[in-house]
Amino acid sequence: MAGDRRIYLDNAATTRPLPAVVEAMARTQIECFGNPSSSHSFGPPARRALEDAREFLRGSLGAARLVFTSGGSEADQLGIVGSAALRPPGRVLMARSDHPALLQCAGLLARWRHHVGVLPVTEHGDLAPETLFEALGRDVRCVALLHGHNELGTLCQLDDLVELVRRAAPDAHVHVDLVQTYGKLPFDLDAMGVDSVAVSGHKFHGPRGAGFLALSSTAEVAPLLVAGGQESGLRGGTENVPGAVGMAIAAEAALSHQATTAAHTGTLAAHVHERVRAALPDTLRLGHPERRLPHILSLRLPGVVGQTLLERCDARQVAFSTGAACHGADEAQAGNPVLAAIGLDRRAQREVIRLSFSGETTHAEAASAAQIIAEEALRLRSLSPSEANRR
Amino acid sequence: MAGDRRIYLDNAATTRPLPAVVEAMARTQIECFGNPSSSHSFGPPARRALEDAREFLRGSLGAARLVFTSGGSEADQLGIVGSAALRPPGRVLMARSDHPALLQCAGLLARWRHHVGVLPVTEHGDLAPETLFEALGRDVRCVALLHGHNELGTLCQLDDLVELVRRAAPDAHVHVDLVQTYGKLPFDLDAMGVDSVAVSGHKFHGPRGAGFLALSSTAEVAPLLVAGGQESGLRGGTENVPGAVGMAIAAEAALSHQATTAAHTGTLAAHVHERVRAALPDTLRLGHPERRLPHILSLRLPGVVGQTLLERCDARQVAFSTGAACHGADEAQAGNPVLAAIGLDRRAQREVIRLSFSGETTHAEAASAAQIIAEEALRLRSLSPSEANRR
Repeated sequence: MAGDRRIYLDNAATTRPLPAVVEAMARTQIECFGNPSSSHSFGPPARRALEDAREFLRGSLGAARLVFTSGGSEADQLGIVGSAALRPPGRVLMARSDHPALLQCAGLLARWRHHVGVLPVTEHGDLAPETLFEALGRDVRCVALLHGHNELGTLCQLDDLVELVRRAAPDAHVHVDLVQTYGKLPFDLDAMGVDSVAVSGHKFHGPRGAGFLALSSTAEVAPLLVAGGQESGLRGGTENVPGAVGMAIAAEAALSHQATTAAHTGTLAAHVHERVRAALPDTLRLGHPERRLPHILSLRLPGVVGQTLLERCDARQVAFSTGAACHGADEAQAGNPVLAAIGLDRRAQREVIRLSFSGETTHAEAASAAQIIAEEALRLRSLSPSEANRR
Repeated sequence: MAGDRRIYLDNAATTRPLPAVVEAMARTQIECFGNPSSSHSFGPPARRALEDAREFLRGSLGAARLVFTSGGSEADQLGIVGSAALRPPGRVLMARSDHPALLQCAGLLARWRHHVGVLPVTEHGDLAPETLFEALGRDVRCVALLHGHNELGTLCQLDDLVELVRRAAPDAHVHVDLVQTYGKLPFDLDAMGVDSVAVSGHKFHGPRGAGFLALSSTAEVAPLLVAGGQESGLRGGTENVPGAVGMAIAAEAALSHQATTAAHTGTLAAHVHERVRAALPDTLRLGHPERRLPHILSLRLPGVVGQTLLERCDARQVAFSTGAACHGADEAQAGNPVLAAIGLDRRAQREVIRLSFSGETTHAEAASAAQIIAEEALRLRSLSPSEANRR
């Protein structure tokens, strides 16, 4: 918005759509409004727009096929439940720190008599290869992995994990959630030996309500929404052509500046971390120290309640989060399950904030945000009654 | 598109989005891009836009609650499978002429050990109350009804059917697919005693990839996509705020001209029917003679292959269909299941075309289309080698 001076540092929750995306979607809505399945002259332009988008996105991942969905969560569910539905009852493995889009598949999986094995994670929030190795077995039907952690920023050891699955559970489907990494880090599905990956449009300056599941040439999934047999029978419902077009435009932009953006957001995250640590030397950066997403900065500020800090900074035009937007509502009661999974107690959980950057974030914004966060954190800490006891 | 002189008579497949819808969605994408779950200042505008849209749409149907979905098919599945999932194994009743979005729920329903009873229909394509009555019983968990038939235009006898269910299977969930009727005919969920209804945005000049399930105050459904617990836990995934806003705008426009549009499209359908019948006196209008959607005209033109007629008219800038876009691909092999359900043999099935009008269709367009259809049908019939034998 013109004149909006707020600083948006919650790009892991959602991103501002590119003007080119908004424009292309509006144009597609008007010019290609036909139903792609129609055999009269209004069908082909919509079909071509859909297939061109599919081809670009498919190619960008080295995938063999691509199924459009309503978002990343549906794509995760299609990859995990859809693959397990074609296999005999057995186990589906996940990590305790996984996004609810993965963990919440358990209910539906039970309908196919699959049991979900939820594995413990390292202090960085990822699955240790030895933990996965111990859990693997011939009864494992699917392994679901989060490539880049949405709260902690940790990148999993995907190569090692996939190799272990291939060795110990060769028939298992390997599904990877790329929601935080697509368009930010290079990924080749075929080269990685992965069966399916889930992507969400609104995480890389694309549309909401649009995502996809990309598949290898050998992977098979059963549809979970059949309806009219669209998407080669793998996902029913009239296709969201503007959403597909918007994703392709956003992906093209993200991929063409991928390395530059990664370097840029990494620099901003490091700068903000340093600046905050200079003011509060006991600040801890969560997540793996090397293996991490450049754009996510998860900080624990001992003695500072993250939610209060968030509110104070928000009042000063700096927006960030305390964790994933996706389980915001339950946290007051239940605590943050991701932070619990990495061993933080309730008090420590409340001291965590997440800042997430994008290619649009400027150095000036990052510097200004760091300054405001440091000031407000110091002020809060000085007010904290428990501070005297803490040290 | 400026300068586009094509006549679009396939509004049952999809409609041209209103410029106001496209504009509002683009504005929402930019101005309310935040994640509705975010607790910083970017969250509330998105949340408000979402809730305002929900409130308008909910109120428009006299519903107690509303769950946004990715479209009509997903809403049907949530209403049917979601309600059956909360009930002990039993039967779910549907009609043989139903849209695949309903019929294809059978696979998922089997996972909850429900059996789908597919009931025969009248020659008009709707469920006779006596047929439903015979099938009802205490083991019926859900009855799924298509309010207005997408190919034939027949309106089901909803009052009678619902009353029968309430009497003979009081615990059953009554789900109604309003995809062709919402915004075209008045509907009050509460007054009708219905538990849930499914609506699709792109059928009333709204967005693709957006729909909803509206629920009565007592109806309960289990979510089929949980993810982050959005939509009060009934449908996970980051909310498609622009889609919700676009639907509300389209609904407001449709509802404010509902009676006028119904009268207008009804007049156009009658006019085209008369004009075609004047040229080909054995033309038959399918569907119920009185109980019908105003905007759908399903015609059987004996001795004319509908697909060939479609192609010839398409070349002359008149677009219509031979049936639902949703099962276009299979028809060459399997025939049209709806037309088979009303007793048409393969040959007769091929003689059917569907014209569907909207508030945007002009009298001049309808007159011109009728003229072209009549001319091309006569020409095709004169070329038909079997014509001599037919009479």
